Amino acid sequence: MNPPFPIPARRTFTAKTVTLAHGGGGSAMRDLIDDVFLSAFSGAGRAAPEDQARFDLAALAARGDRLAFTTDSFVVDPLVFPGGDIGKLAVCGTVNDLAVGGAVPVALSCAVIIEEGLAVELLRRVVGSMAQTARAAGVSISTGDTKVVARGACDKLFITTTGIGVVRAGLDVGIAKARPGDVLLVNGLLGDHGAAILNARGDLALDTTIESDCAPLNGLIDTLIAAAPGIRMMRDATRGGVAAVVNELAEASAVGVRLSELAMPMRPEVQGFCEILGLDPLYLANEGKILAVVPANEADQALAALRAHPLGREAAAIGTVTAERPGRVTMETRFGGERIVDMLVGDQLPRIC
Amino acid sequence: MNPPFPIPARRTFTAKTVTLAHGGGGSAMRDLIDDVFLSAFSGAGRAAPEDQARFDLAALAARGDRLAFTTDSFVVDPLVFPGGDIGKLAVCGTVNDLAVGGAVPVALSCAVIIEEGLAVELLRRVVGSMAQTARAAGVSISTGDTKVVARGACDKLFITTTGIGVVRAGLDVGIAKARPGDVLLVNGLLGDHGAAILNARGDLALDTTIESDCAPLNGLIDTLIAAAPGIRMMRDATRGGVAAVVNELAEASAVGVRLSELAMPMRPEVQGFCEILGLDPLYLANEGKILAVVPANEADQALAALRAHPLGREAAAIGTVTAERPGRVTMETRFGGERIVDMLVGDQLPRIC
Repeated sequence: MNPPFPIPARRTFTAKTVTLAHGGGGSAMRDLIDDVFLSAFSGAGRAAPEDQARFDLAALAARGDRLAFTTDSFVVDPLVFPGGDIGKLAVCGTVNDLAVGGAVPVALSCAVIIEEGLAVELLRRVVGSMAQTARAAGVSISTGDTKVVARGACDKLFITTTGIGVVRAGLDVGIAKARPGDVLLVNGLLGDHGAAILNARGDLALDTTIESDCAPLNGLIDTLIAAAPGIRMMRDATRGGVAAVVNELAEASAVGVRLSELAMPMRPEVQGFCEILGLDPLYLANEGKILAVVPANEADQALAALRAHPLGREAAAIGTVTAERPGRVTMETRFGGERIVDMLVGDQLPRIC
Repeated sequence: MNPPFPIPARRTFTAKTVTLAHGGGGSAMRDLIDDVFLSAFSGAGRAAPEDQARFDLAALAARGDRLAFTTDSFVVDPLVFPGGDIGKLAVCGTVNDLAVGGAVPVALSCAVIIEEGLAVELLRRVVGSMAQTARAAGVSISTGDTKVVARGACDKLFITTTGIGVVRAGLDVGIAKARPGDVLLVNGLLGDHGAAILNARGDLALDTTIESDCAPLNGLIDTLIAAAPGIRMMRDATRGGVAAVVNELAEASAVGVRLSELAMPMRPEVQGFCEILGLDPLYLANEGKILAVVPANEADQALAALRAHPLGREAAAIGTVTAERPGRVTMETRFGGERIVDMLVGDQLPRIC
């Protein structure tokens, strides 16, 4: 980034709530950006003076041969939930999208749409989470935008993060690359995010301590790639859960996938939660779980590497790729039967991320 | 981008309105993305199979030495207005943010937040505008995201575009680079976008034909840079209008700026519109206008180059940079007086872009 831009002295930003003026392009907006965003992001990178961040291309090219570019909007409801908030989620989601493509995340942009009346303290908390999570993931938040809409024109706060990263030279992972005999791994307990959000909405009055698994996975993925250089595919199991990813994989790779219900790592609380509500945990969203397909001869070392990482202690092999029934996902149930795992039309829960 | 992903045969996507299922990560979402987004963007680039687009870094580095990265959310109300719609705006806005930093735009991401119930035909129109504008600007739309929220949780449609581009080697423009003696240029008529949007809201029942000036300016900027290689700064005069940009310039460069009211190119309709409503046209948003600061010895050739371009026919020199009164913007009025042009606290019009 250049040229360096002095962060202005902390202004006495005393507004308690965000108003339309804070999105108007004038001095109120500048104060909000200086005081709430730049002061938080300065440790983790900094919004650029020119409304645009700049990166040296030779330095990027020294880290890999391809630039990765990905975007996600976050509209999760509620904004704050056990295990995280929309800010943490917005950073993890895009960092993970980069990482599962084999890219080392470099920087994020952050565009916010704020509803008039949002408490500045809440915004500060969310922005603080973004900064903290970005630091933990080793990425900068380098550029941004702020819009404010009138009361009722959006639900409190939406965040869109876009990420750039560098794909490691020689690594070629993809949803169409699974082959019969490959093994399907997951790095831990399934369904925590979906269950935590649904519970946090408070309509259910279920007494659980389930927390979102929201976490940046780029470090874990570094470890995994080192242990299994022949890795075929990684994907984070967010909206649509494990079922959506595995169905996409089966279709794109023209293979069958056979899952094992008994092998699925899942908290008994999540299982119970799903039973009470009639949900299928295979479709619950995760925000700190990847599915990885590795060749059979690398499966043991991949699993060991995952389990040695703090975010992979409960990692498991949950299925195998087959030549039979291409495009189909089946699951051996805990009672030894078999069922088809289809793609849902929609999701069980809207605004899960 | 790799690997190439076959665009699926056009499905019989018959939904008339967007539903929550279309944002759920399942097959309904895939159908919406395939049919509405991928089919439109395929001519202008294509959403990538891995939720991430990829670009060869060596090819980027051959075009310049720095990568530029910028983001904007668009929440304009109404979605469709004379001269454009939110889709055209979302592409132009980010293309122009890249271009004013001296970057050649390469690709955009597109993240949409849709209110349940939005007409699919309207979404198609907006997405079609995005594709058409991207083609005109020579950029691809390479990756995206779709979220759907319940009725009342957003106002119809918000779009966030993020852009990457390559900054020309050796070019160093910036808001802090103006020097006394420099000349301030604009590429045409001011205030059209702001006036068009306000009028399109329909509360006023004024009978005007003012259209938004929304346009991608990267071609014009190429011409300008070629004509004035010593160019100091460019900035698009969007939210906050000319006044916001010039105030930022005066502060960041520690110079004074003296504007000439008589020299401001403006339609008589826009002037009349502002008089009726008590608005100051200097603060009206533009979406196809840049302010450029050039050294005095390059001003004539820069102006001639702008005027020779279809988007610069009404270009004018509207002010000069002075050593006096650093940080202050003044304007010589049409009656020979002088007034201070201050930065507003907010904006005259919310949701202008």
